[in-house]
Amino acid sequence: MEERNIREAVRLAGRKAKEASRNMAAASPAAKKRALETMAELLREKEGELLVANGRDLEAARLAGLDGPRMDRLRLTPAILADMAEACRYVADLPDPVGAMDSQWQRPNGLLVGRMRVPLGVVAMVYEARPNVTVDASILCLKAGNAVILRGGSEALHSNVALARLLHEALDAAGLPGDAVQFIDITSHEAVSELCRLDEYVDVLIPRGGESLVRAVTSQATMPVLKHYKGVCHAFIDESADLPQALEIVYNGKVQRPGVCNALECLLVHESAAESFLPMVAERLGSAGVSFRADERSLPLLGANAVPAAPDDFGREFHDLILAVRVVRDMDEALAHIAAYGSNHTEVICTRNHVNAMRFLREADASMVAVNASTRFNDGGQLGLGAEIGISTSKLHAYGPMGVQELTTTKFVVFGQGQVRK
Amino acid sequence: MEERNIREAVRLAGRKAKEASRNMAAASPAAKKRALETMAELLREKEGELLVANGRDLEAARLAGLDGPRMDRLRLTPAILADMAEACRYVADLPDPVGAMDSQWQRPNGLLVGRMRVPLGVVAMVYEARPNVTVDASILCLKAGNAVILRGGSEALHSNVALARLLHEALDAAGLPGDAVQFIDITSHEAVSELCRLDEYVDVLIPRGGESLVRAVTSQATMPVLKHYKGVCHAFIDESADLPQALEIVYNGKVQRPGVCNALECLLVHESAAESFLPMVAERLGSAGVSFRADERSLPLLGANAVPAAPDDFGREFHDLILAVRVVRDMDEALAHIAAYGSNHTEVICTRNHVNAMRFLREADASMVAVNASTRFNDGGQLGLGAEIGISTSKLHAYGPMGVQELTTTKFVVFGQGQVRK
Repeated sequence: MEERNIREAVRLAGRKAKEASRNMAAASPAAKKRALETMAELLREKEGELLVANGRDLEAARLAGLDGPRMDRLRLTPAILADMAEACRYVADLPDPVGAMDSQWQRPNGLLVGRMRVPLGVVAMVYEARPNVTVDASILCLKAGNAVILRGGSEALHSNVALARLLHEALDAAGLPGDAVQFIDITSHEAVSELCRLDEYVDVLIPRGGESLVRAVTSQATMPVLKHYKGVCHAFIDESADLPQALEIVYNGKVQRPGVCNALECLLVHESAAESFLPMVAERLGSAGVSFRADERSLPLLGANAVPAAPDDFGREFHDLILAVRVVRDMDEALAHIAAYGSNHTEVICTRNHVNAMRFLREADASMVAVNASTRFNDGGQLGLGAEIGISTSKLHAYGPMGVQELTTTKFVVFGQGQVRK
Repeated sequence: MEERNIREAVRLAGRKAKEASRNMAAASPAAKKRALETMAELLREKEGELLVANGRDLEAARLAGLDGPRMDRLRLTPAILADMAEACRYVADLPDPVGAMDSQWQRPNGLLVGRMRVPLGVVAMVYEARPNVTVDASILCLKAGNAVILRGGSEALHSNVALARLLHEALDAAGLPGDAVQFIDITSHEAVSELCRLDEYVDVLIPRGGESLVRAVTSQATMPVLKHYKGVCHAFIDESADLPQALEIVYNGKVQRPGVCNALECLLVHESAAESFLPMVAERLGSAGVSFRADERSLPLLGANAVPAAPDDFGREFHDLILAVRVVRDMDEALAHIAAYGSNHTEVICTRNHVNAMRFLREADASMVAVNASTRFNDGGQLGLGAEIGISTSKLHAYGPMGVQELTTTKFVVFGQGQVRK
């Protein structure tokens, strides 16, 4: 497609989404609920069609030599479709956030002032070849009263087109505008660049994928971007930690699912606890195949699976059964390490000392900070938001997992009886 | 200064601000309060020095032929300095937002999850030659636990340098890092461009000034920008409006201070009310020197001060005693007009009909929406926030006037007893 035609197609999608966003903002809770319930039904009814469309994507991806993890994320199965339908029903049943008043107060002149929760308007998502994101992002945006523009990875094109068709059918069945879901089926990168310049229509842009995708989108975007680049999550084992409990937390953070952003990447151990704790870590995590990149002081305590850490092993997202380890003098040094190498994603302290727990919670700058719990809990479902569209490490109204509420903002609402300003 | 040196100077300011922001985030409420109280005292004690520095700026601006309104905004007087000191004391006395838990809930596995209010981190301000913004922005950012980078208009350089010196003295007296206020004294535009690329250190950028400044900053910035381009504020007079009350609201919106962003720019009148209401408007506002840009239906009702509206008179910020006027068929047409021409700033309905009032509040998309009150109330002080750093029409955590709370966000805080993820 010619560059000019791409530009026009993307702009048209933006304009339609903007128009539909007015209807979505005013839509009744019942209509939005019905649309999501219908989507759940359609995912079951049209399972065959969806698997055929996905099969075309898988075949093309196999010929193109897509790697194993990306093939996995591209693949739809009856079980995955059933999970997607379950997510639709779950989000359908969440309370509708739009129109609620968060707080209200009265001014001396009698004006009643409040903050009303309102949709963001038009949310644009740029993401990799993961068809489930097409549905997750859409249902969360729609529940929050937004229109959404989707631009998924080209390898998932047929799957995404089939899913977008069902979303339109579901909106239509509920009397809502199909234009509230705009799927950009242009695989050229120029379509992403044009989307990044569409601040006339798009309120917030959410890139979801690898760091290079996120950086490319952020550098081009003319509207606010909610994003995270990477998760370099630390656990700090304080001198007073319950060591057997801390060991389970470290094990869970590193081993349970090492390829995700809330996996543990670096262990910081107070020098008073190092001699007791690190041999326990070496044994328990070592038996699960974890190897260690150790600083000078931790190296002799970690046994055969440890090698000296290179300077860039700190601040690194391994996405693998590898853990960086450092012994620190005290909490100050641990917090300074996190400030220098952390990614504002997830930080954990294991301690039985109340003062240290509260100081860590306050001073570690991350979208989730926890005491005596695994880093793996930084997830919308685990924290009780129901579902998430991603995790933001941008310090805006969404800092951390973004659920339905994080796809809204508040406006000031004023009830007067004729007040004018003196 | 050479381009390379400018880049290094701005980057150094960013790095210092980032480092200081850690101390500010952990600072005690008492220390922050003391710094602001000291600033109030210094503004009184050093009045002479400040007026001399400002005199140098005024003299240079006069020679350069700066226009009257900009000279006004540049000028400091003992009364203005006293107001600035009063603002310092007012903000000092506001509740400290940092560390408070906005809400907390328990998960089935016993995790206690909450949202803790935290500073944004480093806030950068780019603004025109208004020395009072140097102090307003700094005290709000510091109260909220942030570091701030200031880049004010070059005409106010001497005044700003003198004010920044006092801010450093006040921070020092309270045991807080002077680096928490970074004043960029480089007048070249390259300094602004470099600031826009400083996403490594700057969390949020706030441009405050004319639309061209805001657009230039937005198009270059690699971090989120909280901004408003302009205020095209409407009042819709519904068929059931209390017309004498509506007249006062329209008069106040247009006449009280026509040069500001929350002044009324366009009047929409329901066709059933037009014949009664518009002659009242013509007389009352006409006597204050207001002229009208009228659509076809309103023109014959507005008398001698009206001319036919040009197409671009709708959606225009006149900043003057000029009002665009249009007769609409119904609320649908009024809301469609606002969606097409509004600027997400301030929208008002005058009505006695409850259903219409609630529909307007819900559907008019603006940072403040009001029933039976003047547009001029969209202001941090007037709404009860205490003070404001600006008004955001970006739909982020700050949508509307930004006070101390709007310079913070929330992070997730988790209290566990050893929970790991299954």
